[in-house]
Amino acid sequence: MSHFLFERHHNLLQQAVKACATRGYWSPFPEAPSPRAYGETANDDGKAAFEARLNRPFGLSQAATAGQVGKEVSPYGFELGITYPKPELDRLFAAMQPAAVGWRKAGPEAWVGVSLEILHRLNQRSFEMAYAVMHTTGQAFMMAFQAGGPHAQDRGLEAVAYAWEELRRIPNGAYWEKPQGKHDPIKMKKKYTIVPRGIGLVIGCCTFPTWNGYPGLFASLATGNAVVVKPHPGAILPLAITVEVAREVLLEAGFDPDVVTLASNDPSERMASTLALRPEVRLIDFTGSSQNGTWLERNAHQAQVFTEKAGVNQIIIDSTDDFKGMVRNIAFSLTLYSGQMCTAPQNIYIPKDGIVTPEGHFSFNQVAAAIGDSIVKLTADPAKAVEVLGAIQNVGVIERIEQARAIGKVVVDSQTLAHPQFPEARIRTPLLLKMNSVDESKIMQEFFGPISFAIATNDTAHSIAIAEKGVREHGALTLSAYSTNDAVLEQIQDAAERAGVALSINLTGAVFVNQSAAFSDYHGTGANPAANAALSDSAFVANRFRVVQSRTHV
Amino acid sequence: MSHFLFERHHNLLQQAVKACATRGYWSPFPEAPSPRAYGETANDDGKAAFEARLNRPFGLSQAATAGQVGKEVSPYGFELGITYPKPELDRLFAAMQPAAVGWRKAGPEAWVGVSLEILHRLNQRSFEMAYAVMHTTGQAFMMAFQAGGPHAQDRGLEAVAYAWEELRRIPNGAYWEKPQGKHDPIKMKKKYTIVPRGIGLVIGCCTFPTWNGYPGLFASLATGNAVVVKPHPGAILPLAITVEVAREVLLEAGFDPDVVTLASNDPSERMASTLALRPEVRLIDFTGSSQNGTWLERNAHQAQVFTEKAGVNQIIIDSTDDFKGMVRNIAFSLTLYSGQMCTAPQNIYIPKDGIVTPEGHFSFNQVAAAIGDSIVKLTADPAKAVEVLGAIQNVGVIERIEQARAIGKVVVDSQTLAHPQFPEARIRTPLLLKMNSVDESKIMQEFFGPISFAIATNDTAHSIAIAEKGVREHGALTLSAYSTNDAVLEQIQDAAERAGVALSINLTGAVFVNQSAAFSDYHGTGANPAANAALSDSAFVANRFRVVQSRTHV
Repeated sequence: MSHFLFERHHNLLQQAVKACATRGYWSPFPEAPSPRAYGETANDDGKAAFEARLNRPFGLSQAATAGQVGKEVSPYGFELGITYPKPELDRLFAAMQPAAVGWRKAGPEAWVGVSLEILHRLNQRSFEMAYAVMHTTGQAFMMAFQAGGPHAQDRGLEAVAYAWEELRRIPNGAYWEKPQGKHDPIKMKKKYTIVPRGIGLVIGCCTFPTWNGYPGLFASLATGNAVVVKPHPGAILPLAITVEVAREVLLEAGFDPDVVTLASNDPSERMASTLALRPEVRLIDFTGSSQNGTWLERNAHQAQVFTEKAGVNQIIIDSTDDFKGMVRNIAFSLTLYSGQMCTAPQNIYIPKDGIVTPEGHFSFNQVAAAIGDSIVKLTADPAKAVEVLGAIQNVGVIERIEQARAIGKVVVDSQTLAHPQFPEARIRTPLLLKMNSVDESKIMQEFFGPISFAIATNDTAHSIAIAEKGVREHGALTLSAYSTNDAVLEQIQDAAERAGVALSINLTGAVFVNQSAAFSDYHGTGANPAANAALSDSAFVANRFRVVQSRTHV
Repeated sequence: MSHFLFERHHNLLQQAVKACATRGYWSPFPEAPSPRAYGETANDDGKAAFEARLNRPFGLSQAATAGQVGKEVSPYGFELGITYPKPELDRLFAAMQPAAVGWRKAGPEAWVGVSLEILHRLNQRSFEMAYAVMHTTGQAFMMAFQAGGPHAQDRGLEAVAYAWEELRRIPNGAYWEKPQGKHDPIKMKKKYTIVPRGIGLVIGCCTFPTWNGYPGLFASLATGNAVVVKPHPGAILPLAITVEVAREVLLEAGFDPDVVTLASNDPSERMASTLALRPEVRLIDFTGSSQNGTWLERNAHQAQVFTEKAGVNQIIIDSTDDFKGMVRNIAFSLTLYSGQMCTAPQNIYIPKDGIVTPEGHFSFNQVAAAIGDSIVKLTADPAKAVEVLGAIQNVGVIERIEQARAIGKVVVDSQTLAHPQFPEARIRTPLLLKMNSVDESKIMQEFFGPISFAIATNDTAHSIAIAEKGVREHGALTLSAYSTNDAVLEQIQDAAERAGVALSINLTGAVFVNQSAAFSDYHGTGANPAANAALSDSAFVANRFRVVQSRTHV
């Protein structure tokens, strides 16, 4: 059965491997939530499936449960009322042990075939997933569909493709014949068995539970490891559905479904740190705060730890040949999902003497004001605005907006909007502040949410220096730059390479610095404090398995 | 120049890449110290070059020196009298900074081309290196030549080949065109720049300074990192020559030679731990004690840490169809370089009721005695014995032999032999003890040196269980097994896979469990406490560099 699955998805795998190597645009999972791609009734069916989940226990066959947990609240203003099995950890790991043995022995084609089938079925569930992601993360429907569904599936597939590329490079065996001059050669046969590390732990976040969770989940699974998925207590449902699908495929393929399990907890409990120190856990994939990520890196010594943490994303404005396009693009980047993206910009560096554009010189204040105006325009119509803004995931973000106001001078204040469909939804427009000079003590911390700073620098060289230092010391997932001057762009490119951050140059159209496309954009570099790994590359997968060799004379 | 070097060695690189994938026998560097391979005068020249090094400062152009250090003593009984530049660390790293920038910008073909040229020139210096290795490690000449020269060069080349395989998979750029239905597609061009982690630190050992040092050195160098080589104070010369050659090649290729530097210290000073915590150091390759290796893993948070530490290597004897061959093979394994190999066996498990052989039943005592007799025979003629035994690297090993005597019943005692050529040489034959039952508190620590235990177990199942537990808890680089029973061999294979250790089966001829051949045998698995990495595989190289991308609209 599992061999059948490998054959079934072999063509997809080959395409994915090729896409990783060439890095042009490619996606096998349609990103448009259209009836043509997903079927006439897909939206209605997905919505109904989501609604059927509400106000009841989430059925999951897994062993070792000790009651039910779950207190998810939709950022659109209602309790989901879903409970999930709470695991008793000793028994959970005891149940996973024999499941992991069967999985280990199945070998690379089974691991990859099952992983690809899970992704295929997740794709079919993209509408249900979209509603689950929307009502846990607060993303607007379109983003919830795309980032929570096909784009997350792309990222999962990408990890499987990288895993396969490393797995297939290990031969099953070898014949070794060493010449001995006039004597007979020494002849040996060797066998190479790929063995997984053990159990992988995926620690999910509350904003992109699938997009950030799938790379680690599928990288571990496709390299033969059993996996415990530990969702953020605020966004359990998307990963619970994922685990449900994974278990269904495992069972059908003849495996013990406890190869993939869910470990849910209530917001009041701590579970991740306990799980992370279990001796059975040998791989950890974490998305969350710098504090927790750094703790894992320094304390979970028994495991390989892959972290995506916080950072301060920055934009350097030097000059532009499309002022309106630049301003609109930046404003949209700040507005999209209310800045609750790990890739959203925060610090915008503008020379204090202003910039040159085709429309003439714009002062620092004019540039800041233009970005502010563009935000206002984007969010003027609440019905349209909420489709970009989504809702605020948690009250912590609301509090952060309140606190941030004191830091600079308000260019555009954050507004509360009423959602036409969900009157209780937490909707906020972006807060844009300006600072007339660089004050590192204020700007070099992450203000996660719709909070950004227009910061006056001495000149572009100063902007570059501040940005490079910011990346090195505080981490960043993105750096964006606007300049018409090739020499300046070269300096910025150099700074990005030195500091180790992905750079977007002169984005004035339909691509935003927040966006990272699987198979083409590396998400994170692993070279600055915001993340110790990139999604995805060889380093993300190659150490999730080991090779045990045996040799004997022929 | 560096591009020329890449072209020059391109064919060698392609062969090495292929060898890593197919894992049959391959070596480009002749292992026989023969005039035909290395030239009529190669031995004399190498010896003269070594002797010319003695009793004077080692000339090295590197910056930031603060006096001279070095107190190496040949295990064959004379002081080398060589001193090396002692680095002033702040100045050393300051000097390496600009060197590292030039190296980073040179790119993968330059990194790999220069690395291959260094290996090529090291091969030409194999005789000089042999004497340097012999008179620091105590290895006999033949082993010093092979393991210190061509086999170490093989391991270095293997690391370069793996590095190249990962580097070449990153395209320089990509064209990304995303369809937009009826609208024009979005078109972007992307650039991917490979950037090194920073500075690599290689911490050498005193027994195989080049064999164990080259994989990390070349893996870091070939991925664009500058490297500080920190030899063990007891075996500086082999790595000093290596650094000298590397600097010579770098200079000729137009690079600042401070891309590769030497950091030597006297035995009374501590330097490795200070170097390891330098913020500039982002990669550490360590060979040495478990205590120091674990300390690095847990404290050098700023770096990727690759360790090879101590372990307890084990042999399971169940049955054999070649008793004499088995006994001779094991005795040789214990005698070779006086057991001072990280791969040398220590614990030999034999069922208390003995084993079945073609010559009939042999009791536990008879098996132990036969191994002992074989050791005696192998070491009976001092002139021949010293060519297998080599000398004892340091007095710590001598003391360990004395202490070990108390642990079990002596089967064969360790003898002091006189070296015919070097009267002051520290020569000891193996000590073989027997224990009539398993006492984990005694046998589950590494007795590095010519110390081994014949241990009576209840039966082979007990032997397997003890061996598996030993690997899991204490680590091992090798496991060896003798059985004529396929079902037993399958159980042992299973145990090896569960515990994560390389297995050799029924070695009765000219291959010994101690030996690990580049391009075919993975040295270490990275899956048990003896080592957190394998030499070499993708995981050993893939995280030594990162990718910085930039993107802009077309």
